[in-house]
Amino acid sequence: MTGRLGLLAFRGSLPALVAAADPDAHVITFRGIAAEVAPTGGAAHRFEKMGAVIKELKRAGCDRIVMAGALARPPLEVTRLDFVTLTFAPKLMKALRTGDDGLLRAVISFFEGHGLQVVGAHEVVPSLVAAPGLLAGPAPDEAALADAARAGEILAALAPLDLGQGAVVAGGLCLGIETLQGTDAMLSAVAATDPERRPRARGVLVKLPKVGQDLRVDMPAIGPQTVAAAAEAGLGGIVIAAGQVLLLDRAALLAAAEAAGLFLYAREV
Amino acid sequence: MTGRLGLLAFRGSLPALVAAADPDAHVITFRGIAAEVAPTGGAAHRFEKMGAVIKELKRAGCDRIVMAGALARPPLEVTRLDFVTLTFAPKLMKALRTGDDGLLRAVISFFEGHGLQVVGAHEVVPSLVAAPGLLAGPAPDEAALADAARAGEILAALAPLDLGQGAVVAGGLCLGIETLQGTDAMLSAVAATDPERRPRARGVLVKLPKVGQDLRVDMPAIGPQTVAAAAEAGLGGIVIAAGQVLLLDRAALLAAAEAAGLFLYAREV
Repeated sequence: MTGRLGLLAFRGSLPALVAAADPDAHVITFRGIAAEVAPTGGAAHRFEKMGAVIKELKRAGCDRIVMAGALARPPLEVTRLDFVTLTFAPKLMKALRTGDDGLLRAVISFFEGHGLQVVGAHEVVPSLVAAPGLLAGPAPDEAALADAARAGEILAALAPLDLGQGAVVAGGLCLGIETLQGTDAMLSAVAATDPERRPRARGVLVKLPKVGQDLRVDMPAIGPQTVAAAAEAGLGGIVIAAGQVLLLDRAALLAAAEAAGLFLYAREV
Repeated sequence: MTGRLGLLAFRGSLPALVAAADPDAHVITFRGIAAEVAPTGGAAHRFEKMGAVIKELKRAGCDRIVMAGALARPPLEVTRLDFVTLTFAPKLMKALRTGDDGLLRAVISFFEGHGLQVVGAHEVVPSLVAAPGLLAGPAPDEAALADAARAGEILAALAPLDLGQGAVVAGGLCLGIETLQGTDAMLSAVAATDPERRPRARGVLVKLPKVGQDLRVDMPAIGPQTVAAAAEAGLGGIVIAAGQVLLLDRAALLAAAEAAGLFLYAREV
């Protein structure tokens, strides 16, 4: 009924998981972005030439794509832009000024305008996200759940501003709010908190998508290194949104949480 | 018409400024809090014995007090609590769980319950706060004002949660939100941002009181070291709320901003 899946493969382990789940997927890679999967067409593409990407996907019989892996904003060489990409450039420039959400919305509408539906990696590989409940570690106590609730309130307050995928609360006090630098940077700052100012409670990291965040292309993620950073920051556990947060390297992630004695809990949303 | 001013002197230069502005003020100091002014009564008090503090202030003819200077939550020795302090303890314990605002509201109502009106240091020394307008440095451009407006929106969104006295925005992107660790810690985190992820705009620090924050006892503050940290973080300027942010060491603060080429702008509120 549907055609073939196209896989735009960026950095990290995610593209290989998608490729393993759908071996028929047509893989596209890009110059300057070291992907861990080989391109089906044999050659890496340029971001400046999205016309060629769309042509190859169409020729391969694709009608939907997954964009998988980490992608810092690529430096574009304006002189190399092809016609298809050029027509998209004004929208892209405008979107760049409105934050990540605007940018990703523009990219999605670009592909969909060319007849390629955009789907999320978790729709191809359901084990990339969590079912509700305790995933690893000891069950959170009431104080930890109260801290998680307050962190959730903080993130909800920031959501309308296209901001806030993570927050740390301990004993009711906020120790960190994630900004541009990401979760690990926030956890480093928490770890550096003056011990005398820290409440007695160990604290909880909450990771949620923002309201209206497009989970097809921009899902919050945690991995083993998140657990290591949370343990380093002295936290008691991590709460994520069930179905809406990517679990990178799932087996190692759960093992790390068990080993560190941190709970990992997926909240129903 | 009014009686004498009592000055509860904590750490830093602020108590001396208040004492200089009102040489008739009756100064109270506390053990373990090295104040830069001498106690009028000759002896330092204990936090555990607030009954003695109130008695001394009353005997000196005080009907209002200023609490001036920095005060980390003092470790209380429960066995030393006097009766007056003991009666306050349950309220205090409850307030400690509701964040700084709740704590300070409880402290204010404690003193006012004993007939001592609580006034702000800036009411005694008006030059502690800024009149609206440019205080130092080059005038902010439109982009900087837009960044300041976005930082203001972020702080407004967090205010109902008793959170957020400071935020940094650059090119529309949020680089930092102040949490328990304070402004300097936030600016250190901004300084540590991966240069590749930073927008081209230098960015603006905005310091505002929270909505409902009681400015008599808990005013946001900036000083020369805030300017140094902002410069270290690569920012273009600082925006504060006129009349609602303490200017610590005003002359040195303005000189530091001029020297660093940072604007310091007080926004009308």
